[in-house]
Amino acid sequence: MKAIAVEPGAGEPALVERPQPEPDDGEALVRTLRVGVDGTDHEVIAGHHGKVPAGADRLVLGHEAVGVVEDSNGTDLEDGTLVVPTVRRSPTVGSQNDYFGRGEPDMAPEGEYVERGIVGEHGFMMEYFTSPVEYLVPLPEEYASLGFLVEPISISEKALEHAFASRSAFDWTPESALVLGNGSLGLLTLAMLAEVVEFERTYCLGRRDRPDPTIDIIEELGATYVDSRETPVSEIQDEYEPMDFVYEATGYAKHAVETVDALAPNGVGALLGVPESWEFEVDGGRLHQEMVLHNKALVGTVNSHRGHFETAIDTLAHLPDWLTEDLVTGVYDLAEYQKAFETGDDVVKTAVEFTPR
Amino acid sequence: MKAIAVEPGAGEPALVERPQPEPDDGEALVRTLRVGVDGTDHEVIAGHHGKVPAGADRLVLGHEAVGVVEDSNGTDLEDGTLVVPTVRRSPTVGSQNDYFGRGEPDMAPEGEYVERGIVGEHGFMMEYFTSPVEYLVPLPEEYASLGFLVEPISISEKALEHAFASRSAFDWTPESALVLGNGSLGLLTLAMLAEVVEFERTYCLGRRDRPDPTIDIIEELGATYVDSRETPVSEIQDEYEPMDFVYEATGYAKHAVETVDALAPNGVGALLGVPESWEFEVDGGRLHQEMVLHNKALVGTVNSHRGHFETAIDTLAHLPDWLTEDLVTGVYDLAEYQKAFETGDDVVKTAVEFTPR
Repeated sequence: MKAIAVEPGAGEPALVERPQPEPDDGEALVRTLRVGVDGTDHEVIAGHHGKVPAGADRLVLGHEAVGVVEDSNGTDLEDGTLVVPTVRRSPTVGSQNDYFGRGEPDMAPEGEYVERGIVGEHGFMMEYFTSPVEYLVPLPEEYASLGFLVEPISISEKALEHAFASRSAFDWTPESALVLGNGSLGLLTLAMLAEVVEFERTYCLGRRDRPDPTIDIIEELGATYVDSRETPVSEIQDEYEPMDFVYEATGYAKHAVETVDALAPNGVGALLGVPESWEFEVDGGRLHQEMVLHNKALVGTVNSHRGHFETAIDTLAHLPDWLTEDLVTGVYDLAEYQKAFETGDDVVKTAVEFTPR
Repeated sequence: MKAIAVEPGAGEPALVERPQPEPDDGEALVRTLRVGVDGTDHEVIAGHHGKVPAGADRLVLGHEAVGVVEDSNGTDLEDGTLVVPTVRRSPTVGSQNDYFGRGEPDMAPEGEYVERGIVGEHGFMMEYFTSPVEYLVPLPEEYASLGFLVEPISISEKALEHAFASRSAFDWTPESALVLGNGSLGLLTLAMLAEVVEFERTYCLGRRDRPDPTIDIIEELGATYVDSRETPVSEIQDEYEPMDFVYEATGYAKHAVETVDALAPNGVGALLGVPESWEFEVDGGRLHQEMVLHNKALVGTVNSHRGHFETAIDTLAHLPDWLTEDLVTGVYDLAEYQKAFETGDDVVKTAVEFTPR
């Protein structure tokens, strides 16, 4: 069968031939429909992130998949069920650490997990994959074409859950939300904040000139586009308004610090980007004082668990059709898979189609 | 009646004569027993913090009080009831903003509150004070001598509540806790963490040589003393262990940043210090990455509300007698009130006694 894999140092993915996997006990065989491409894939391809599986010379990409159960293999998943796989797996086959045991692999520290398509285990960009059924989340047939959006949405479900939990000790009624970053994750999250969580006022930061498809989406959602070249994050509070909630999806380290400036009293910032080491000067005294005197919080969050995938399916159902149509700028079959990895101002979200539904 | 007040620029408190206050409708008259002295008082005296009431030329100090209802003035508080007053008041007499309306003055932003003895309203260091009864928290008679510890404990009750709330979206079973700062608030909090919350292992950071009364208290609590001159906060994780919970009570801005280094995966740091502006270099990239990949959180927290005072009274009941005896190094009557404001390595916590019970 065909798979899309990357060799360390190659700098671009390649179509490779692999034997079709066979499910072990407790696993199902899944026929892959579509697999989304995101910023993490580009970081893995560039060699900034990720790790090939032990003993392998390349990594099969892909962690945002939707597929169909081809062979339930005696499990209680029916053949033909549409499923989305979760991403983290136990690093030791056949045994689980506590995090996996209680269904919270997203809280496992480094070394206690592998991530399919990212760190130490092959991903889903192959015609068939196998998975223990507890990592396969069923979803209604109508999401066969957009199911690859469930994984990125689940990331934000977790971020929102953790951020809101941090404000649960008092009466918090947030009205204003700012998303830092107009990539596909930023835009999906902006849509969640505007359409599902129903913030009164939403903002999204980018650095693009009009006309631009992401600015169009931002404005169609009723949100305000903030151009970071005109208004740095630290000035957003004065230029627009203090933000009850900030969602950072740029991976730009100064944004983590500046989030505190953008927050309203009692606000919370969710941090999701993963920058490299970078030393710079900050007014740590003001940052510290501002967090304390105004009861502000910062919450770092990574990955998601099965419950977040389940909530994400509900969220996907609430996103308007125009949004997903505008967001998904390209779905390419295996013959032109390279196009799914191209970037540019006209590209928002892409996917590779392995088999049509 | 006598009061202890500070004039801006004077640099030290003075004993002054004031008319005895008369309670308005809904207020009780309270005879002051004891009022504690803390770091905030010293900052107010030094002129680094605080504000005299509008139209006044000096500020009566004191925000950690315990007293007895002298005249219930038709309210439902009985004469003779032992009470502790909360600290924040509405900035406009006779009307309440939303924060006060819902019993959360601790969440009010700047400008929406005054603080008795600190910002814009006279404190409790006078022989009698008045207060709306909703700001007077009754406590059992046996706490007449130690009731002035309820306010500082309430500050940590809030900090713990907010920090733990931030970890409530997953299964968190913290075992290790680090307190940054061995002042009276740090030591009280260390005692709460060791004796009430019952962390398995507790640590407290200071910069003192032995023999030292604070190190004695730390070790008597079964905690480990960490000398910051030997082990900077950023190295505590390697030298001792990663900390599930860090409580910052130093007001040293670098500690806010270094707290992230000291935290275990999924840990939370509560920030309570209020430093001045201070620019310094940080590895913001590593900080950001560490928060995200290990699901860490930082929660700033200030002040406390009535519910925290009520929990603090329970907590005070659980603290061992030896601790409060060792912690309170001096209680001075009005004739020698200056001694309550002296500092030194043999001073941990002091109070002024206005009338004996």
